[in-house]
This record gives sequence, C-alpha cells and structure tokens, in this order.
Amino acid sequence: MIHDERSPLLTDLYQLTMLQAYRENGFDDTAVFEFFVRALPSQRQFLVAAGLDHALGFLEQLRFSDEELTWLDQSGKFSTEFVAWLSKFEFTGDVHAVEEGRLFFANEPILRVTAPICEAQLIESRLVNILHQQTLVASKAARCVLTAPDRLLVDFGMRRAHGAEAAMGAARASYIAGFTGTATVLAGMRWGIPIVGTMAHSFIQAHTDEMTAFRNFARSQPENVVLLIDTYDTLRGARMVVDLSDELSSEGIRIRGVRIDSGDLAALSLEVRQILDAGGCDDVMIFLSGSLDEYRLRELQAAGTPAAGFGIGTHLDVSQDAPSLDCVYKLQEYGGQARRKRSSGKATWPGRKQVRRQYDSEGLLCGDVLCLEDESEDGESMLRQVMAGGRRVRIDTLAAARERCAAELDRLPQSLKLLDGEAEPYPVRVSAGLRELARDVDRRFG
Amino acid sequence: MIHDERSPLLTDLYQLTMLQAYRENGFDDTAVFEFFVRALPSQRQFLVAAGLDHALGFLEQLRFSDEELTWLDQSGKFSTEFVAWLSKFEFTGDVHAVEEGRLFFANEPILRVTAPICEAQLIESRLVNILHQQTLVASKAARCVLTAPDRLLVDFGMRRAHGAEAAMGAARASYIAGFTGTATVLAGMRWGIPIVGTMAHSFIQAHTDEMTAFRNFARSQPENVVLLIDTYDTLRGARMVVDLSDELSSEGIRIRGVRIDSGDLAALSLEVRQILDAGGCDDVMIFLSGSLDEYRLRELQAAGTPAAGFGIGTHLDVSQDAPSLDCVYKLQEYGGQARRKRSSGKATWPGRKQVRRQYDSEGLLCGDVLCLEDESEDGESMLRQVMAGGRRVRIDTLAAARERCAAELDRLPQSLKLLDGEAEPYPVRVSAGLRELARDVDRRFG
Repeated sequence: MIHDERSPLLTDLYQLTMLQAYRENGFDDTAVFEFFVRALPSQRQFLVAAGLDHALGFLEQLRFSDEELTWLDQSGKFSTEFVAWLSKFEFTGDVHAVEEGRLFFANEPILRVTAPICEAQLIESRLVNILHQQTLVASKAARCVLTAPDRLLVDFGMRRAHGAEAAMGAARASYIAGFTGTATVLAGMRWGIPIVGTMAHSFIQAHTDEMTAFRNFARSQPENVVLLIDTYDTLRGARMVVDLSDELSSEGIRIRGVRIDSGDLAALSLEVRQILDAGGCDDVMIFLSGSLDEYRLRELQAAGTPAAGFGIGTHLDVSQDAPSLDCVYKLQEYGGQARRKRSSGKATWPGRKQVRRQYDSEGLLCGDVLCLEDESEDGESMLRQVMAGGRRVRIDTLAAARERCAAELDRLPQSLKLLDGEAEPYPVRVSAGLRELARDVDRRFG
Repeated sequence: MIHDERSPLLTDLYQLTMLQAYRENGFDDTAVFEFFVRALPSQRQFLVAAGLDHALGFLEQLRFSDEELTWLDQSGKFSTEFVAWLSKFEFTGDVHAVEEGRLFFANEPILRVTAPICEAQLIESRLVNILHQQTLVASKAARCVLTAPDRLLVDFGMRRAHGAEAAMGAARASYIAGFTGTATVLAGMRWGIPIVGTMAHSFIQAHTDEMTAFRNFARSQPENVVLLIDTYDTLRGARMVVDLSDELSSEGIRIRGVRIDSGDLAALSLEVRQILDAGGCDDVMIFLSGSLDEYRLRELQAAGTPAAGFGIGTHLDVSQDAPSLDCVYKLQEYGGQARRKRSSGKATWPGRKQVRRQYDSEGLLCGDVLCLEDESEDGESMLRQVMAGGRRVRIDTLAAARERCAAELDRLPQSLKLLDGEAEPYPVRVSAGLRELARDVDRRFG
C-alpha cells in the first residue's frame, strides 16, 4: 500500500546515479563502509545497538523486481546496460557488527560492510534507515529501564510511532532494552514479544454506566482484568473496583489491576492505593499511562507512586527528546587504500576499524579504544563477523539480545546511568595507529 | 520482513479484547469516532492534513488472514466464536474527512468514522498511526515552504526517517506541502513525485582525485550534473567546477549545480557564487544541505545566501522540533446518543461535529466554528463524506492535494506564517449547540 519495505528503490536517487558512474568508469574494487554515530544527542550518555537482524535480512533478500527494472529503464535517467546489470544485482559482501543489545558511544562503528563498491554503496540509505530507528528507540527505552528497574514497562506507542515499521521496530527495540512487553499485537505474532493491554475510554463511554462496563469487560476477559478508572472520576472508579471485586470473586474472577491515564498521576495513584487496600484489594496492581517518559518515571517514583507498572507510548516510540541520531555510513577504504572525508566538522577516521572495550576490577565499562582492525590494543573486540558472502554466519535471537542488554546495563558505571548527562562523557580513545593512518591519508588525497 | 503494514494486527491488544467484550454483550450499534489534535505543539501555529488516502486504503482492504486467525485462536486470549467472527470482518462504515492539503487547528476533527462499534474501534490504532505521521511532516514542510517560497526544496530525509513507511510518508507529505521533490526513488515510482539527487562524498573519496570524480560523474549523468564540492576544500572545489565547465561544454555537457553540505553555508555559498560568476558559471546553481530546517532557512536567507535550493533531511522527516502531535480518535456518539470523556485535562466535545471556516474580505482565514454537524453556523464546511459503506465516494489525487495546500497557504494570515508563534492562536469558537450538548451529556452519564 504505502511502500514495499524490501524494495531496493527505498534508497536515495544519488545511490543509483553514482552506481551507474562507478560502472561506466570501471570501479568494482572492494569498498569498506562503516556505520557510526558522529555525536551523541546531549540527552544521551550511551546508545544501545539495535536493528541488526533486520538490516541483515534486508541485505539477504535484496533484488530488483521486474516492475522496478522497467520503471528505471523508462525513467530516462539510466542506460540500458546499467539496468541490465541491476537485474542481476545481489549483495555478496561481508558484514562485521556489534551485536544487538550492546552499548556503544560516539564515533564507534557498530556495522562494517566489505563488498564491491556498487553493492556497498546502494544499501546505504536503507541500512541507515533501519539501524537508526531501532537504535534510537532501544536507547530511549534503556533509560526508562534504568530509571524504573523494578516496575513493569510496556510499549504503548504504536499509534504515534512514525508509521507501521516504526511501530514494529519500537516494540522490538524496547523489548531488547528490557521492556516487559508491548501493546502492538503484530509484534506478538511475529516475534513472540509479550503483548499487554487493558481497555480504552471508548469502552466505558459506550456503556451507559461505568460499573456495567467494568463488569462486562471482566467477564469477557477473566484472565486479564485491568480496568481503566479515570473516564469520569478516578477515585469513584477505584471505589467501584472494590465493590466489583467482591462481586466477581464469587464468580472466580480476580481483578488484576487498574489503569489511570490522566490527572495528577502520583497523587491519584497514592489515593487509589489507599482505597484499594482499605477495600481488601491489596493485590490489585496500579498501572499508569499518559505522556510518560524516563523523566516522568523519575518524578513519579520520587513522589512515592505505588504503581506496579507504566505504559510508555509516544515519547518512547518517537524518542521525543532526541528524535534522531547523527548517524552515518561512510567510505573508509577503497581498493585496499584507506579513505576519509575532511568536510568541515564532519571529518571521519579512515580505514577498517575495531572497537576494544576495557572493564575495571568490578566488571564495569571503563574505556574504549577506537583502533585499526589489526592493531594490537587490549580489550574486548566489539565488532564480529555476522555475514560472509551475503549470507549470515551466526544467528542471534531476540531473547539473547535482550539478555545481552540487561547484562550490559549492569556493567554501566553509575555516572552514565544518570538521565541528565552531567557526567564526563565515556572515554573513547583514538589509537596511535589510527591517528597515523589519518595523517597518511591526508597526505595522499585531497 | 519487519511487518505487514496491511495487517489488522497492527493494532493495540486492547482493541481486540474490547471487541470481544462488545460482541459478548451485544454491542453492535453505530458508533461515531472523530480524529483530532487536542493541542498544537508550541512550535506550530497550524497543521496541514495529510495521510487520508492511505488511511482510506487501509480501511478498504482490512481483512484477517488465515495465519492471523490461527495465531489469535492459539493465543488463548480469545474465544473460538470471536475468532470465527473476525474471519468475516471488514470495514463497512462511512467516513467524513477534511481533504489532504487543507489547514486545520486544535480540537477540529479532520476525520469522522461512522460504523458498527467493533469496526470503528478496531481501526483506531492504525488510523491514528497513518494520519499522525503524514500530518506531522506536511505541517513541518509547510513551514519550510513559507520560509523559502522562491527556492527549490527537496526531501533528503529517507535515511533517518523512522523506517520505510515514514520515509515514504515524508516524501509524500512534503510534496503535498509544496516541496519540489524527494531523493527517495520509490516515492518517484509509486506516486510520480519528482526525484532529485546529486552525489555523495563516498563517490569523491573512491577516486584518487576530486577532478576525476567530477568528470566521471558528469559524463555518466550529463543531464543531471550537480557536483558535491565540500569533500576536501569547498572553495577549491568551486574553482575545479569552473575549470571543468569549460572542458565539458566542448562535449555539450552543462554543469547544472553544485552542492555544499558542511561548513558555514551562508558564507561559503556567497564565496562559491563569486567564484562561479567570475568563472563564467553564473548559470550553475548552488544547492545547500546539512542539518537544515525552517529556522536555518530563515538564517541563511537573512545572511543573503544565493542558494537556489535546499535539501531538507532529518529535521523534516522526523519533525525534529515537534516529533509528535497530541492527536486522538475518540468516541463521540454511540447508539444515537452523544458521548464524551471527562478525564482530567482530556475532556472532549461530544457528538457528530462539523468545522465551519470563515474568510475575511481579502479571502484570508479569519476564524472557525466547531459546531454540531446539523447546526446552522456560517462558513465553509470542512468535513465532507469520502467513504460510504466501506468504499470511497470520491477520488483525490496527489496533484490536487498539492494545489490545494498551496492555495491554503496563500489564505493564511501573515501572523500565522511566523515561525515563532508569538501571534494569537487562530480563533476556533465552540458553538452554543455544542456547549449545550456537552452539558446534556454530563447530566446523562458519569
């Protein structure tokens, strides 16, 4: 309908015009491109890698359809020879990457493509598109998880995510980062992510009285009775829940929770807790939603909210305080020679690189080195080969990525867990070998 | 791969659980839901309606697949009767809407669904998802168009849009708002949007010298020679263009433009203009890109940039300064009775509504009235029927939406065109009939 997400034409026009020029001028040597984030948003102290599985899936199936080839041919922009060559296009390169769920920092490549230059070039736009969105949301979600580690966190953002793919990517990325689940049903079907849901105001409004609405919902979903109590008057809603709890218990139905979506959430949740407890409903959990993010979670907890869980919607799915990352995919080597761009404020480090990570005596991250792939620097090598000749060489699972992220967040120094980023940035040292290579490249080019 | 954008499971779980409860309790009367934005972001003085065509396309094809039905059945969350009923689900309702490209303001419905409550309820999440993203980007794009009405504006944002559908929606929405075109090739193929492209730094870097790169590109794309001159040294790049222009003119190739993507764009564009003009290249246009948005366009123009066009990327596609709208889809009537929610800070106006728009003697927008559908208030009725019984009753085209938006922006009062929103908000009066209905509903419910 709106697009075909697998289409190789989900790319910028210049990729195709450059490809034709490469072809016509005999450029078919191996190129090395790396994906990295140039600078972290001021609201982020670390990022969580996500999206790799879909990026690799995109590469594996990349082909031009007959419809696309015909359209390109008739567009008048490309030669017949070039379109014929595209008809045989596939991705045959190698990919090295940082696994999903791991933490990374500015200027550290999390994906490296080694392939004939036309293959490595064409995929730029869509690779960035996939990795950017999931990394963006995983990084935002991790902040929520660090802020409220002992509460249930659920992705409620589908409706205001930027389209279908963003909604699905957000459900997946937030689950990697440690969310309990999502409200997006398709994410449950596709990936087995736990799906969570309550009820909407419209359900209450469609009934002539709130109590009947609660009763009808409870009997229809006896295993999942979470009642929305703020449609008219939240405290009155809580008292109705107490009354209904007695009535339903005789039917063997237990009310699991109530949701509050408006008003002073901290104060209301405390008052509702009192009403529920006084009414013998101390096992009914309180769930809060409504414009929540990590900053609001911090406030609510500081105010002593007894909520057991939070639905995080729009702010998570669009990464409201930092809705984009300054991420790029840059040529670092061609034909065996390292390359770099030197554009003002946008210069890159040349060559095939590796990130080596060091840990302190407590196992916490204490510093990375950005170095050449074959340079001897201590530390854990972050980039590993994930694709050879266009085929994956290792299979990762969503569950593994989620466990990995939890372990990573445990290894994060306390200062980097702060929401407001007043700490010193995490140290990423550029190796001597890399600095020397940059000087060497500058002597040879430009 | 990542999702099936047509799936009815692209919804929140609670829609399905509510549907089962509606079914089991005999709720099958007609419901009326309306989509509107509760409050404009502080950075917006108006919004541009977009996404309707895709929202209607979504409704027309909405069916559950066998795979989806099997999964729902096995999920343990739904009754066999309910899943059997879903297997016959389709959307049979009516839709009234504000046409794409028209302006609207807070609390004004731009879409109204009238359908059996289960149909009207299920579609909420995805309808909001589609309308939100395209309206968001169209509204951002319109601000760019108003700021730089005489320049070429091109959507460069695909790579950092939030996924594939967001990239496509941004290309489309910005074109409706008046952009010249997009770099996203698939938007050209699907919708005939003009596609525009230059070259990337990697093309320059893959060559051992910049001049050869320029020459190779020009000969490969003789009809579309726009050269990127900032890879190493922008002014030297401009001088190369002058030299190359002579050389290529003997081959009948004309250099159409240069692009600058980094550095002090205002100063560099002035200096490059001088170099080009002095070298006889006064017909070579300058194209600027790099973290641009409407605020930067204003600065660049205030600094006298001679640029003929701008590539607007990330900030457009993610609507960086306002990445979400507070938009909702709310039940306004059920079974012939008006409804409203009264949640603190989130109360809605009940009933089937219409927006009537008034114009001053110069034809400029001067005030809207939010009223009941059948209430006699002067002005142009903004909501028109677009779907009856699940089928469209009028076909709109992208070209028509684009022309409509241009006409709308011409009718916008000067104060609302300001980027910084210091003007009084556009007046939207709530009619006496609507206020009376709200009081009446409050007496009957809650």
